[in-house]
Amino acid sequence: MASETQSINLITANTLLKNWQGHRRLTRKTIAAFPDDKLFQFSVGGMRPYGVLAQEMISMAVPVVEGVATGKWASFKHGKSESKSELLKLWDEQTTLLEEKFPKIPAERFFVVEKAFGEWEMPGIVTIQYAIDNEIHHRGQGYVYLRALGIEPPAFWDRD
Amino acid sequence: MASETQSINLITANTLLKNWQGHRRLTRKTIAAFPDDKLFQFSVGGMRPYGVLAQEMISMAVPVVEGVATGKWASFKHGKSESKSELLKLWDEQTTLLEEKFPKIPAERFFVVEKAFGEWEMPGIVTIQYAIDNEIHHRGQGYVYLRALGIEPPAFWDRD
Repeated sequence: MASETQSINLITANTLLKNWQGHRRLTRKTIAAFPDDKLFQFSVGGMRPYGVLAQEMISMAVPVVEGVATGKWASFKHGKSESKSELLKLWDEQTTLLEEKFPKIPAERFFVVEKAFGEWEMPGIVTIQYAIDNEIHHRGQGYVYLRALGIEPPAFWDRD
Repeated sequence: MASETQSINLITANTLLKNWQGHRRLTRKTIAAFPDDKLFQFSVGGMRPYGVLAQEMISMAVPVVEGVATGKWASFKHGKSESKSELLKLWDEQTTLLEEKFPKIPAERFFVVEKAFGEWEMPGIVTIQYAIDNEIHHRGQGYVYLRALGIEPPAFWDRD
């Protein structure tokens, strides 16, 4: 029983992409919940503002998928949007690109170990999971910023 | 190519458990980073303190695995530890239980749709993923509390 369970296919590539896009919809709602003049200015404890954290997510999502798909890794660069409308536009463009590019990752590439962005050595799937977990982590921080501003964040379970 | 990628087995049960235990080690370090007198007292923006969030994680982890394994769901109850040492002891006990119980989940049970804790209807694997994502989300909030206290949180990538 145990060994049977251990090797079973719990999460397919298709499921992973659906989960990720669900998280991205929630992250987008969290961006949208910030007032324009707080998104890139406000934070707690000297941390990066949520707009900057969202730029980091954008710098990871599509570039990670492209790197895993092709083995060609550009250096890691943070995005540069400076307004909420610009950030949301960029976010939506990346969502579309992710939907197009992810299903084209050749199956064997998920398991090839290489240095993501020339720096972090791990299998493709681990790099992708790291990007998703990093998004959840930073979005949780955005929730605290919103609460500190007296704004109710979107519900954590709302991924539609 | 696309359909081949979509159905590939990206994450096995064994990998999922390893990832989760890595996250749990980081969450434990985050608990340990709080001063005793802040863990259950301090928060930002009127949110729950990190000790209370960690109790929620404990209320989900093993009970979710037991529910998915057996189909028997108790009602959802928050934990009750009140000191850091008690919380860490409970955390470690749950880590051991998780390691024992998770590999015994019958393979087919991951895909059975039922009401987790009599309330949230989804397949077992989705309930488990929700518990993991919820932990990452709340741990990110703990990082903000630590920063607001002038304490450096553990590195996000440190899962050892």
